[in-house]
Amino acid sequence: MAAPSFTVTFLGTGSGTPTLARNLASVAIQRLGDLFLFDCGEAAQIQYRRAGLGFAPLRAIFVTHLHGDHVTGLPGLLMSLQLADRAEALTVYGPPGLREYVACNRRALGTGFSYALEIAEVPAAGELLRAPAYGIRCALLDHRVPCLGFRIEEAERPGRFDLQAARALGIPEGPLYGRLQRGETIHLPDGREITPGAVLGPPRAGATVVYCTDTRPCGAAVELADGADLLIHEGTFGEDQGRDARHKGHSTAADAARIALAARARRLAVTHISPRYQDVRPMLEEARAAFPETVIARDLMRLEVYPAGEEPGPE
Amino acid sequence: MAAPSFTVTFLGTGSGTPTLARNLASVAIQRLGDLFLFDCGEAAQIQYRRAGLGFAPLRAIFVTHLHGDHVTGLPGLLMSLQLADRAEALTVYGPPGLREYVACNRRALGTGFSYALEIAEVPAAGELLRAPAYGIRCALLDHRVPCLGFRIEEAERPGRFDLQAARALGIPEGPLYGRLQRGETIHLPDGREITPGAVLGPPRAGATVVYCTDTRPCGAAVELADGADLLIHEGTFGEDQGRDARHKGHSTAADAARIALAARARRLAVTHISPRYQDVRPMLEEARAAFPETVIARDLMRLEVYPAGEEPGPE
Repeated sequence: MAAPSFTVTFLGTGSGTPTLARNLASVAIQRLGDLFLFDCGEAAQIQYRRAGLGFAPLRAIFVTHLHGDHVTGLPGLLMSLQLADRAEALTVYGPPGLREYVACNRRALGTGFSYALEIAEVPAAGELLRAPAYGIRCALLDHRVPCLGFRIEEAERPGRFDLQAARALGIPEGPLYGRLQRGETIHLPDGREITPGAVLGPPRAGATVVYCTDTRPCGAAVELADGADLLIHEGTFGEDQGRDARHKGHSTAADAARIALAARARRLAVTHISPRYQDVRPMLEEARAAFPETVIARDLMRLEVYPAGEEPGPE
Repeated sequence: MAAPSFTVTFLGTGSGTPTLARNLASVAIQRLGDLFLFDCGEAAQIQYRRAGLGFAPLRAIFVTHLHGDHVTGLPGLLMSLQLADRAEALTVYGPPGLREYVACNRRALGTGFSYALEIAEVPAAGELLRAPAYGIRCALLDHRVPCLGFRIEEAERPGRFDLQAARALGIPEGPLYGRLQRGETIHLPDGREITPGAVLGPPRAGATVVYCTDTRPCGAAVELADGADLLIHEGTFGEDQGRDARHKGHSTAADAARIALAARARRLAVTHISPRYQDVRPMLEEARAAFPETVIARDLMRLEVYPAGEEPGPE
């Protein structure tokens, strides 16, 4: 069974104030040996440990906006990385103001770090990070303060290797298979030239996860979430509070579902649930009426994300 | 059975970085309908809820020093009080620098409060708060940065009412008993004058709790803890790390025990335990060798504190 492209762990799924059921906003997204943290509400580092995630794979942190329930855990996490003897540099991406938030906490608490800490203030939509196998970009959402949505997307992967075609062409099994798979043209002992296209299927799309919170329903979220395998979108309220949601710069769970539908996402996880809701079943029903592939996230929930058509079937 | 003078709830008993076993420093001390919070490490507000403590009785917060593991939970708690519609004013006491710490977090995160928040910077030892029935004062401890220890002490209470003496004097049962208990001199119908001293035993001492962390073993702690019914003192390390403890401005559990002994405290709770210790039994043994009435605090441990001689006996 193939490994998932991404493993998403919800560290906190609440909003505003922590409750015994929901910690404040934070989501860990793992891709092979890398871990990316999105938002860092108070106690995120504790949930991070509770989820069994190590600090070593942490590559970067992405902060959506400078409201307390999304960043009050950041100073403590940065200190704990120091106490864990981190040596690798770390970049924290977020909206303008993030640098002063981190700096003033360091000044007031006299914290020095042994690792290089870079604060990357992101004033506009664009690409933040590009590795050969994946990239991360952001868009500007519609909240009461500048707020970023993030998209992490695997690069297109080579097509599947067609073993039957390779055998029919008389290519000897072994290293030549690997070279073709890596996209090289090879020459057989009999002089024939074989291009990768002769034995590889069409290139395959990678998987994509999109994280949008906090925001009113907006076109930027639809665009950012285009075709996402998993859209994580805030649904702070149920339809009972629909007007209040817009007024406060938030979405309902059903709003999130309509965004997922418009973006042709494959799955939706609704998060950033108001402490007023102990029973989220009505919100879930409202959302599923528009977009059936919806779950309401809960703390420490883990979702595996595969590219379309590559999910493992039932055992 | 009489109610305890104080109920002490340890919200976090760790140091430096939170672990799955120990949250960061925070202790709630309740006296009748009032609650005082000492230190506010990250997730203190979550532990506060987990302990079943309501926000309404919170009267004041006391911060020992401006290291992250003692204050990173403060901004979030202040925001949650706002979301809980607090109207009552709140004072946070702590060392110089506390005002800027709170202010810069409010600036960076744009948080406004509906309640009056006063930050009282305390540069020196002295009395912080005086109510008819109790007082709170502080001393300067010996850490790497300015650090306050706190003492909460009940006022002396009137002596016990001697019912037999009152009857022997022929004082009619009823309101006259109450007036004598409140310290008034009364006149009987037959003209005799009765002073409170005739029917009351000697004035009784109130109970005292003292909180000292972080600190090297120091005379100021001994003085502050004089005769305390409960001394809460840091013991970050075991004797295996004794030299390192002093170097870092900390105490061992055995140091804490020696302070309790020198101060003639009645009980000791050792807290601020380094994450390096999963098994605290050796520390406990080391401490008990000097001061038998020692416990190692653990998260959500609750201790009831009575004045000397007033503990309820076994049922």
